[in-house]
Amino acid sequence: MNFVPGIFILASIATVLSLDNGLMRTPPMGWMAWERYRCDIDCVSDPKNCISEALFIDMADRLAEDGWRELGYDHIMIDDCWTAMLRDEEGRLQPDPLRFPGGMLKLAQYVHDRGLKLGIYADIGKFTCMGYPGTTLDKIQIDAQTFANWTIDYLKFDGCYSSTDEQEKGYPLMSKALNATGRPIGYSCSWPAYQGGLPPKINYTFLGEICNAWRNYDDIQDSWDSVLGIVDWFFNNQDHLQPAAGPGRWNDPDMLIIGNFGLSLDQSRSQMALWAIMAAPLIMSNDLRTISSSSRNILQNKVLIGISQDPLGFQGRRLLKEKSQIEIFWRPLSHAASALVFFSRRSDMPYRYQTSLARLNYTTGSYKVLDVFTGETASFPSHTTEFTVSINPSGVVMWYVCPTSRWMHHEKEEGRRWKNRISSPKHHRLNTGSRMFL
Amino acid sequence: MNFVPGIFILASIATVLSLDNGLMRTPPMGWMAWERYRCDIDCVSDPKNCISEALFIDMADRLAEDGWRELGYDHIMIDDCWTAMLRDEEGRLQPDPLRFPGGMLKLAQYVHDRGLKLGIYADIGKFTCMGYPGTTLDKIQIDAQTFANWTIDYLKFDGCYSSTDEQEKGYPLMSKALNATGRPIGYSCSWPAYQGGLPPKINYTFLGEICNAWRNYDDIQDSWDSVLGIVDWFFNNQDHLQPAAGPGRWNDPDMLIIGNFGLSLDQSRSQMALWAIMAAPLIMSNDLRTISSSSRNILQNKVLIGISQDPLGFQGRRLLKEKSQIEIFWRPLSHAASALVFFSRRSDMPYRYQTSLARLNYTTGSYKVLDVFTGETASFPSHTTEFTVSINPSGVVMWYVCPTSRWMHHEKEEGRRWKNRISSPKHHRLNTGSRMFL
Repeated sequence: MNFVPGIFILASIATVLSLDNGLMRTPPMGWMAWERYRCDIDCVSDPKNCISEALFIDMADRLAEDGWRELGYDHIMIDDCWTAMLRDEEGRLQPDPLRFPGGMLKLAQYVHDRGLKLGIYADIGKFTCMGYPGTTLDKIQIDAQTFANWTIDYLKFDGCYSSTDEQEKGYPLMSKALNATGRPIGYSCSWPAYQGGLPPKINYTFLGEICNAWRNYDDIQDSWDSVLGIVDWFFNNQDHLQPAAGPGRWNDPDMLIIGNFGLSLDQSRSQMALWAIMAAPLIMSNDLRTISSSSRNILQNKVLIGISQDPLGFQGRRLLKEKSQIEIFWRPLSHAASALVFFSRRSDMPYRYQTSLARLNYTTGSYKVLDVFTGETASFPSHTTEFTVSINPSGVVMWYVCPTSRWMHHEKEEGRRWKNRISSPKHHRLNTGSRMFL
Repeated sequence: MNFVPGIFILASIATVLSLDNGLMRTPPMGWMAWERYRCDIDCVSDPKNCISEALFIDMADRLAEDGWRELGYDHIMIDDCWTAMLRDEEGRLQPDPLRFPGGMLKLAQYVHDRGLKLGIYADIGKFTCMGYPGTTLDKIQIDAQTFANWTIDYLKFDGCYSSTDEQEKGYPLMSKALNATGRPIGYSCSWPAYQGGLPPKINYTFLGEICNAWRNYDDIQDSWDSVLGIVDWFFNNQDHLQPAAGPGRWNDPDMLIIGNFGLSLDQSRSQMALWAIMAAPLIMSNDLRTISSSSRNILQNKVLIGISQDPLGFQGRRLLKEKSQIEIFWRPLSHAASALVFFSRRSDMPYRYQTSLARLNYTTGSYKVLDVFTGETASFPSHTTEFTVSINPSGVVMWYVCPTSRWMHHEKEEGRRWKNRISSPKHHRLNTGSRMFL
């Protein structure tokens, strides 16, 4: 594998500089309410879908019982619209009493009892994006302590109704306040998204020191156009963004919308593949109570999750944009392996793309590849071996690529690694080794 | 039902003026190669998908064996790229000898033996769109006769590489030439699509006298954006287009792409619902050998096909565009019934839309409705009864609506009508009455 030396160096530095709370060494996985349920607070007309403890209990049950948790989807995140319109008499945020009658500590206990982590939402401005009480600078300490008291595990800190100055002060302050509680709380910052997401306005080195993840760009919507817009922005700006990511510090292109209404199956595979290439958080926002088996199969693809969660934590890059509207993406993985995604932006018919690993910057040698979605394997006696992949319109072909000499070695190595994870009570993962390294 | 009187009058005139070959009294249904298979002529690398007699035999088998024909999908249409690059020594078009070794007469026989009709493609210009031999003015008569000799049942006559003048002469000339063969051949004209599709450049009254259907606008592509663009154009121009349609003369917004790669399930339901509202040809372009059951269920929805094929043949209209991005479409049907489509252009979450039939121009009375996709029924004691429908992002809710007083009557009426069709060997339709009129 022809690693770009620069990435190695930056990543080594990054590991030293990242937020030292030991959390999110791989991109976080789980479920978040926002994209699918928004600010639906009408529990009278829409009791199954309104933002309420019942919704989070439903989804916690599904994460725990339908095989999600074991694959790594272990966070359940509340987003906006959970609070009452007023703080309590001691100045603390409080959940809406009608929609969260049991309170947050009890909800967190329910979530923890099922081996999951609970995420919550606040906003550095005067109000949250939907107009609920904000966490202004003077409230940061008390809110951090409230979240810790509730045994919250993750905070999404939004930036509506705040000034540049308040963001500059508030995001680092919340980082310190969370650390000061003594409870490990993953910290996701929306700061970059409010400042255009790019240097020099954004200092990603500094951001990596104070946040575990950050939203760089616009909110995702339930449409393929939205996914394409996000993909374009992240890869057009990969020279700035890619070196910023690493264990404990991740770019977040926003939630997975797989299982909702706007993506075809091929487009769903494309979002999943490209999010794994980006080392992005895999945070679904969908209805796990009614999700189709075809969407579930994509989200629960073990090889793909293994690529997403590769312990090196390198974010991948776009290698090529062809005139044929085929684009190639690549992510280096542990043990000299890598992931390749062949993506078609065409809207006519499956395109037969011919190339060789040599033309995709792979170094001399023989390789074995595993098709992530079909499970098929292939051997290339040489990096110059020509091959053809058939790529569906708005779809992908995704490969796990490995030098032949390391293939069997990986089988043993990875088998051990996954076995270790299973034996650890904190990780509820399945052994993916058997399928990943046939 | 509050019919718009103007529509009645125009439709009555139209019936008199439409092409008098007795064909396509309801919008044609079937399968066409273009959108899914384009000009793939590489039968060496891609033998299952190249334009060849094997492809049409495969699809004819599927239409005949998988329940399509019985529902009305009885046309199988060849598009561009079927000919040899040269005419034969007598000046006749001939199929590519390697890809159609059995010849067209034999293929037509195969298709007819399975109770299907065969469509073919030609172009009024010097070349077809993909550069194959065109049917210039001097070749119209011989090509019409060749098609009749081959026992062809339908002709799509394209307009690439032709002048406005050649179109003005050629499209009527082909109509006469087809009639002169004595064989009933459905005639689809691409003329309007080459002239902007609108009056005064297009005279739809005249077009209805010479063509059974016509393409008004751009080719469909395998994307939701393409479907939306087509829907917008047709309904933005409904005042010109809607009165042009009627039995034997149809606007054609192009093929159904359901079952391919670019549409979600909700978007697939939306295309099917809106095409039925438009009284559009239901011509699939997909792979019937591998189509998913969920796509098949949408395309084979009997109530929906019944609406599409309503014998009155009124094209529907967009009634409303709400600020909430909900749009309402309506089509009047036989026996005082009608179809309603509630369509969401949102990309966030299901939208709860509240209205009443009265606000959708329905006249005083009580109504029963049947949800086309769920099969559920509901009764409205009054046209002013308020109701709420939940519409998915990029999805539809589609209703068959009937005055309560006619509901039982319809059950008998429609039962008889469908029964008659079944007893006729020319129609291979199932009795949809039982489900449509619960």
